[in-house]
Amino acid sequence: VLNRDLVGQRSETVRRANLSAIVRELHARGPLSRSELVARTGLTRSAIRALIGEFVADGLVVERTPPLVGVPGRPSPVVRVQPEGVVVLALEVAIDSLAAAAVGLGGVVIEERRVARPRGHFTLDEIVADLVELTGGLASFARTRDSIIGVGVAVCGVVNRADGRVATAPNLGWTNLPLGARLEEALALHVPISLANEADLGALAELRRGAARGADDVIYISGEFGVGGGIIVGGQPLTGAAGYAGEIGHMSVNPNGTRCPCGAVGCWETEVGERALLALAGRSPEGGIAEVDAVIADATAGSETALAALESVGRWLGLGIASLVNILNPRRIVLGGLFGRIYPFVSTTLDAELHRLALEAPRSLVQVVPATLGIDAPLLGAAELAFEPFLSDPAASFGPRIAERRVVA
Amino acid sequence: VLNRDLVGQRSETVRRANLSAIVRELHARGPLSRSELVARTGLTRSAIRALIGEFVADGLVVERTPPLVGVPGRPSPVVRVQPEGVVVLALEVAIDSLAAAAVGLGGVVIEERRVARPRGHFTLDEIVADLVELTGGLASFARTRDSIIGVGVAVCGVVNRADGRVATAPNLGWTNLPLGARLEEALALHVPISLANEADLGALAELRRGAARGADDVIYISGEFGVGGGIIVGGQPLTGAAGYAGEIGHMSVNPNGTRCPCGAVGCWETEVGERALLALAGRSPEGGIAEVDAVIADATAGSETALAALESVGRWLGLGIASLVNILNPRRIVLGGLFGRIYPFVSTTLDAELHRLALEAPRSLVQVVPATLGIDAPLLGAAELAFEPFLSDPAASFGPRIAERRVVA
Repeated sequence: VLNRDLVGQRSETVRRANLSAIVRELHARGPLSRSELVARTGLTRSAIRALIGEFVADGLVVERTPPLVGVPGRPSPVVRVQPEGVVVLALEVAIDSLAAAAVGLGGVVIEERRVARPRGHFTLDEIVADLVELTGGLASFARTRDSIIGVGVAVCGVVNRADGRVATAPNLGWTNLPLGARLEEALALHVPISLANEADLGALAELRRGAARGADDVIYISGEFGVGGGIIVGGQPLTGAAGYAGEIGHMSVNPNGTRCPCGAVGCWETEVGERALLALAGRSPEGGIAEVDAVIADATAGSETALAALESVGRWLGLGIASLVNILNPRRIVLGGLFGRIYPFVSTTLDAELHRLALEAPRSLVQVVPATLGIDAPLLGAAELAFEPFLSDPAASFGPRIAERRVVA
Repeated sequence: VLNRDLVGQRSETVRRANLSAIVRELHARGPLSRSELVARTGLTRSAIRALIGEFVADGLVVERTPPLVGVPGRPSPVVRVQPEGVVVLALEVAIDSLAAAAVGLGGVVIEERRVARPRGHFTLDEIVADLVELTGGLASFARTRDSIIGVGVAVCGVVNRADGRVATAPNLGWTNLPLGARLEEALALHVPISLANEADLGALAELRRGAARGADDVIYISGEFGVGGGIIVGGQPLTGAAGYAGEIGHMSVNPNGTRCPCGAVGCWETEVGERALLALAGRSPEGGIAEVDAVIADATAGSETALAALESVGRWLGLGIASLVNILNPRRIVLGGLFGRIYPFVSTTLDAELHRLALEAPRSLVQVVPATLGIDAPLLGAAELAFEPFLSDPAASFGPRIAERRVVA
């Protein structure tokens, strides 16, 4: 019994879902032949042709038929995105720097600027002004401005995704500040703005374009001044009830441990964070990146103090990772920031702790790997966040904008 | 540009998705008027009428027009499931008991049998034979046998959902045993069989029909001989890479703690499990439920030893819950088994620890509540697991079976 009523009502929804499926594939995987798109989306060849035609007409993708090679049959046209057809603005408020980038469809970084900033407390006004200035300084900004369909912001703090407020950012001295609303007003781009925690976005970037590619269940653990975590479950970011999930640096690992800046005692980051490593290595805990560089240089040169400090951090790192493996049964653990840098020194100790403390069943399935996107992971993740509404429903986002651009041109 | 090609190809998919949406609502929420179904599914009134007609024809739901009351207009017919139209068999291998139940659509327990079993190791053959016998003893089994569309099994162990093997069940002395395949053969029902960990299924049941109803992000924490956890994220069970997720009893909470049966040191369950409580209360750690009952009775009578033991467990319970709140940002924590029973004695201590150790932002959003389904939660969750393929695509599951039943009748 096929109810025809349902068909008319739902066909536009189906068309939009199919446009979304195609653009997601091209954005995530790069150029694909029509045949590959048929295989990946389950749509018919004629449907793919029609839908690609819509994107081509709107300047979002181009098709090229590869030259004939020595195989029989007509080669399938290759479809690729036009990066400057749809652009997002990615911003980052990191502990040691601010960054802005124009990122095109397919994750192409058109231009990026990053400036160091001293650690310490800044007002919301100062940070907003600096980000606006950094954005204005992107040489490509004027050119791509009309193609910008969203803004994504990575923040070194706990972010409420629903209202764009920073619930708490101890490194900035912030509590419950409306960064999203203030940036929206100051940038005046009239496009959606989305904010999230930097480690959550680092996880997203490593999943789409880095060390977690191909895995559906991932924990990204980023060591910085504090310890951040981004959790991916079934290919989707785990946000929790309000976007606060992933604060793995505040797992209780040592009831007899030291006080954490968060106010609790014995948090994981008091044992594995930058300050713990520096203190163990006999350096000033507040020494920052320069001192971390020195510890790594010392360890490379064979310093026993530096190696012992790294081993202690590796042991606690393994203990916390074992807990996360037991709780979440991830396929891959990606170590970013400080932890990616020290991985060569701590991998043996870390593995031994994992064997000692994790259950065999989940442990046998997990890989621990260093991150591959380096310092830019959260910024690239902010771009992915900003692309999300477009990827979910490209017709809704680009339809009106494209129409408007044509009138202007 | 509406591409008509897509419409024909997808309309059957749309119809099946709509059947699924309707039956899910009726299964989860109980009787609903057609108007409520329109509001909840977003389908048109005529579509709802046609699809309900299909279910009525197949004997899965009934419609009844309520009597006219003193309001203008025709009352909307009320739709309800016929529990015996689609039945699942739910089984449970718990630490202290075995259980079997025939559960009808809507989660109606048609009949349940539970038998105590002594703690200790049993062979796979023994458990399979006991479960088959228990099932055969259900008086309703012969009557509902032809309506059974799936079997769900809750197991006190780590279960690989993909292959139905029990990876490890220390309480049974099992490692990597094919419980699913053996039960499938022994029951000879020729329907899909699904297995999962008991705490994961307890979480699912509390979400659908108990203390977690209405929340999308939930952690169910069950205290028994060990400590089990079931995690719900965005309304879906978090299984991890292979269904092993939720082993929160093996979080490392005390590096100077005692050895856990899993082989590690300082696992959460060594501080909050049944044995820890009994030892703290000066009773035999292996005393089991009878001794736990005695501790609770002593505490109720004001025994300082018993109250101090419960306070210590409450402190460690709060510490572990704080970690989980920071990692997962849940909306609700449901305390099952032992923890539900002792909740009145430990709630103050637990709250204080949560304030001391959890970040303010996620803590301000979480509610800690005792479970409401009691000992049957995992069994009811096993039924929900067995219903899942039917709820996802009722046309695929009941179509052939209904046809076959008609031939038989």
